[in-house]
Amino acid sequence: MNVRLTIAYDGSCFFGWQKTQAGPSVESTLEDALKKILGHSVHLQAASRTDAGVHARGQVVNFFITEDLPLKTLQERLNEELNPIIAIRDISIASDDFHPTLDNLGKEYHYLICNDPTHNPFLRHIAWHYPHPLDIQAMQQAARFLLGTHDFSAFCNDRAQFTRDPICTLYSCHLVVHKDHLEWILIGNRFLYRMVRNLIGTLVYVGCGKIAPEEIPSILSNRQRIAAGITAPAHGLHLVQVFYSPFL
Amino acid sequence: MNVRLTIAYDGSCFFGWQKTQAGPSVESTLEDALKKILGHSVHLQAASRTDAGVHARGQVVNFFITEDLPLKTLQERLNEELNPIIAIRDISIASDDFHPTLDNLGKEYHYLICNDPTHNPFLRHIAWHYPHPLDIQAMQQAARFLLGTHDFSAFCNDRAQFTRDPICTLYSCHLVVHKDHLEWILIGNRFLYRMVRNLIGTLVYVGCGKIAPEEIPSILSNRQRIAAGITAPAHGLHLVQVFYSPFL
Repeated sequence: MNVRLTIAYDGSCFFGWQKTQAGPSVESTLEDALKKILGHSVHLQAASRTDAGVHARGQVVNFFITEDLPLKTLQERLNEELNPIIAIRDISIASDDFHPTLDNLGKEYHYLICNDPTHNPFLRHIAWHYPHPLDIQAMQQAARFLLGTHDFSAFCNDRAQFTRDPICTLYSCHLVVHKDHLEWILIGNRFLYRMVRNLIGTLVYVGCGKIAPEEIPSILSNRQRIAAGITAPAHGLHLVQVFYSPFL
Repeated sequence: MNVRLTIAYDGSCFFGWQKTQAGPSVESTLEDALKKILGHSVHLQAASRTDAGVHARGQVVNFFITEDLPLKTLQERLNEELNPIIAIRDISIASDDFHPTLDNLGKEYHYLICNDPTHNPFLRHIAWHYPHPLDIQAMQQAARFLLGTHDFSAFCNDRAQFTRDPICTLYSCHLVVHKDHLEWILIGNRFLYRMVRNLIGTLVYVGCGKIAPEEIPSILSNRQRIAAGITAPAHGLHLVQVFYSPFL
């Protein structure tokens, strides 16, 4: 039985998705909980191996079991074990050949920025505190140049990956201005390593005048990581949704 | 010089506003930071001595100093010391006779409820997780009975206080339904001890059918704490604003 979970977690409590010697990971925490409930180990696969500090609101994970367990009970037991820092939002049976990484057609990420001179205690774990003024219109103008299908090498921190296949399609890259924070919403068919955080760092460079919006096309075409902005901090990034059926 | 601060803090990091042997309080943390910066002790007064776990987004505090310090510098130094769990949102000079507790004309509290079967890792410190269905319309109907000037003894956990002066005016008690949580907004001229949390506990009892909306008037008039609902947990409560000038 191929069990599919949709899970949320507070990334500030973990050293990322993947198992590491550095400390607790989401993967090890979830595997331990499943082992405790099922009495044996399972192997987890996730749609995205989120970095340390990155949050998830709709990460998709699967594992195989042979037991015929009521799914609702398994969800409840897991939520009791994992409360309060991981939540199993949904549980279902997938077809045997379902693979969360290989089968997904796209992902939606949100990136939060607290753009206020003073820090906000309630956003400290979930938003990048950027205290200097940002030019909203310039950032929006820059974002429009990023939409569509491009070679995103300039926004990738992994040479092997961008050598192999650096072409991605960005369907959405828009900004929602909330009362106490900014929220960037990015939807794409795939994202290169650290691509969202590099896009956000670049948009913030545009917002503070270090890069002009009109420079974005040449940054894309020159494919030089150095020409783009910094990598925005992990704790502002949220994996919100993973798509397995056409979503546009 | 009477210095007035507007501050925000994450109540989950403190044992309440007031100094206590139990652990760090907002008062002691702020006093320590001021002593470090000024080189001497000051005495703080707050608009509301928030309970352990209760959050503030707009608490008002004052203290007297004789130094002629640039306020902007003092704010920045304090924010450096107190980052990330307390934030000085605003600083100004008040008249010598300004007193944050005695002079306020009203307060605005918000209370957040995560009304989802599954817990939400991102709301765990700031909202009450109430997993069972709530009847929104019934709660809204009950809230309308609470508006206006009443004897709120049935919603007070301090006998001495309600014997003395239990009459309060509630100007607003309305519900905003967000995507992932409910937000109660309460504005009143004054609130008795634990009154907001007792009102919320009662509204939730209405929402789950334990109390009918029509019972609210008799709960008010009978003045029996036992007839109302439970005291909602501290961590859902947020002191949002304190009013010192007419606000309606």
